[in-house]
Amino acid sequence: MSLVVMKFGGSSVADADKMKHVAGKIAAKKNAGNKVVAVVSAPGDTTDDLLEMAAKIVSNPLAREMDMLLATGEMVSISLLAMALDSIGEKVVSLTGPQAGILADDNYTRARIKKVNPRKIKACLTKNNIVIVAGFQALNPKGDITTLGRGGSDLTAVALAASLEADSCEIYSDVEGVYTTDPRVIKDARKLDYLSYDEMLEMAGSGAQVLQSRSVEVAKKFGVEIHARSAFSEKQGTIITSEEEIRRKKMEALLVSGVAFDKDQVKFTMMDLPDIPGVAAKIFSRLAKIGVNVDMIIQSAAVDKKNDISFTVCKAEMKKTHTELDKIAHEFKTPQVVFDEHVAKISIVGIGMKSNPGVAGKMFEILYKNAINIEMISTSEIKISCIVDELDMVKAVEELHKGFGLFRKK
Amino acid sequence: MSLVVMKFGGSSVADADKMKHVAGKIAAKKNAGNKVVAVVSAPGDTTDDLLEMAAKIVSNPLAREMDMLLATGEMVSISLLAMALDSIGEKVVSLTGPQAGILADDNYTRARIKKVNPRKIKACLTKNNIVIVAGFQALNPKGDITTLGRGGSDLTAVALAASLEADSCEIYSDVEGVYTTDPRVIKDARKLDYLSYDEMLEMAGSGAQVLQSRSVEVAKKFGVEIHARSAFSEKQGTIITSEEEIRRKKMEALLVSGVAFDKDQVKFTMMDLPDIPGVAAKIFSRLAKIGVNVDMIIQSAAVDKKNDISFTVCKAEMKKTHTELDKIAHEFKTPQVVFDEHVAKISIVGIGMKSNPGVAGKMFEILYKNAINIEMISTSEIKISCIVDELDMVKAVEELHKGFGLFRKK
Repeated sequence: MSLVVMKFGGSSVADADKMKHVAGKIAAKKNAGNKVVAVVSAPGDTTDDLLEMAAKIVSNPLAREMDMLLATGEMVSISLLAMALDSIGEKVVSLTGPQAGILADDNYTRARIKKVNPRKIKACLTKNNIVIVAGFQALNPKGDITTLGRGGSDLTAVALAASLEADSCEIYSDVEGVYTTDPRVIKDARKLDYLSYDEMLEMAGSGAQVLQSRSVEVAKKFGVEIHARSAFSEKQGTIITSEEEIRRKKMEALLVSGVAFDKDQVKFTMMDLPDIPGVAAKIFSRLAKIGVNVDMIIQSAAVDKKNDISFTVCKAEMKKTHTELDKIAHEFKTPQVVFDEHVAKISIVGIGMKSNPGVAGKMFEILYKNAINIEMISTSEIKISCIVDELDMVKAVEELHKGFGLFRKK
Repeated sequence: MSLVVMKFGGSSVADADKMKHVAGKIAAKKNAGNKVVAVVSAPGDTTDDLLEMAAKIVSNPLAREMDMLLATGEMVSISLLAMALDSIGEKVVSLTGPQAGILADDNYTRARIKKVNPRKIKACLTKNNIVIVAGFQALNPKGDITTLGRGGSDLTAVALAASLEADSCEIYSDVEGVYTTDPRVIKDARKLDYLSYDEMLEMAGSGAQVLQSRSVEVAKKFGVEIHARSAFSEKQGTIITSEEEIRRKKMEALLVSGVAFDKDQVKFTMMDLPDIPGVAAKIFSRLAKIGVNVDMIIQSAAVDKKNDISFTVCKAEMKKTHTELDKIAHEFKTPQVVFDEHVAKISIVGIGMKSNPGVAGKMFEILYKNAINIEMISTSEIKISCIVDELDMVKAVEELHKGFGLFRKK
């Protein structure tokens, strides 16, 4: 008998009808001869509603109490879903994160799972129950309820799959899987059958939000194969697994698996920095101190003992970055701070590029042929990213998608 | 330093402004030099909203899951209230029923508290925190969240006061205390300064819903003095305490403390029952088996070897009572079942009547003088109840209230 972990997001349990639909899917999985553990998020807009209630009370709520408040959302989902399963004759038990043995560190609002104690889940499964677990929440060492941060239910599902040694971990959402690029932007985008953990991580970091990154990291660490699929169809989705597994299944890895893009970027440049050691260290440690996440960084070669440093941050951090850079510029006396918020980051991702050195050149050529200017470049083992003018973004994605042969086969 | 338990009902925490008002009252109590444990119910209509959500899924929900669902209401209250207290500079911790050590039996939806383990609350108090506890909920021996039934937050407050040996237990609501009769019906109704546990129980059983009966029973058992008062004024409310304490404080007990009334009554009569042993036992054990609570019972003296038995039930149980009585009548062959749903129960309650045998006579005389027909009578040590036509109810209450000197002193 196989053990399957199924995870359903908030939009899949947003109302009574959807809840019943999900119950039907869970029951079908059970009746096909599986043991089932289902992880659910809070219904639809519940979390936003709770945040709004808190905002009416206080602008800067206590993190511990925020977690107590937010945890109620998933409790509503699990109890209603259990009722729905009972009403169609299934034996079922719902468990909160703490009851399910999800043990986290002592951070509030973005706790990290330290350990899963699956004793209670196993006992419920042995008694032939479907087990419904509240995603997103955990128990900390003080006995408090905590939450795992945005997308935390994915993490709950993967952690449970790892700890229960589940045969599969199915993450259901309202899209059919991971696409070569965003199908809302490029209509020829193709659903991928397989994707490696690292590719998924690079795609996520580049704006494709199908799975929470930490859940992919945990899946990679514990070798949990994730099946990302639609809650509203029976179609096979995308399997996220190890590179070895993909190579075993496919004759040859794709050169490029996907094209990701991200408009949420601002490019800053500090011009005329003195060319002395420690300048870059000073700038980026100061930004780290105020909590700014810097993405791409380029330092140009020194000319006349002056340096330029460019880097990107997300738009939400634009203001505080600017303020801090102005201070730093003042300290260095001469430098000038300029920024450009009309940029976008385009990335191609693929494990195939590891063994194929021509990929970067091909990318630049495609962009050049389409008269798209590259403002910055950064590369990793399996990703190449370029910053371009945001007006060129869609065109760039389209041409790269076509150029690397990612369009849907007719 | 005194330890005060304060309990606030759902209407006192129905929105952000009321929540802040309650936070202010709690903070004031703390800053007057007390340790404070506050028990709160779910905000306003939350419980009804949750019930409605469940009703959209299934008509007969699993009790265990219902408790999981309903428990979220109080978690919303405690976290928001804690945020409100934090925002005015108070050190505060919220605890769910299970976290607070409220341990119950294994019934769902109307669990009984078996024990309170106040270790965690005491630890929080020692660290100078205000402790906010979710009312109405408990932990059962299986580790499930359960609820204590209607009015369960009162019970939580009293149980905590007993277990913490609190110096006072203040139950806040939107009325100023316990009145001689319902002030919405009789405008001269007077707020009582003191009332004994037994009087409160008799009043509650007779339709005056200020405090949940089980909480009064527990208060009596453990000697917890309850102060029932308004959340919206600073006035002294009603102290519910032992008879001894009241006699110590007052020179003489009132003959009658209050007049209660209850329209939610149906009178059934089974006529021409055979006058043989076991007839009454059969009727009432059959009704008990189908869960009907019988209130007043009269059996008339046998005439011609035939007996009549009359009794009252609440209106919600009218249908199933009637169905069952028809079956019983059929089994006894001859009897006739009649019922009257246009009746009301009027009760006078007072510990003073223990030592004063004239009270019943005076009650009947007052009703007689006002041409109010008495259909049934039942008496206990401190209560006399009469069933009258519902059209006479208000008049009867008015005259009894006046006749026993309960009106407000001008």
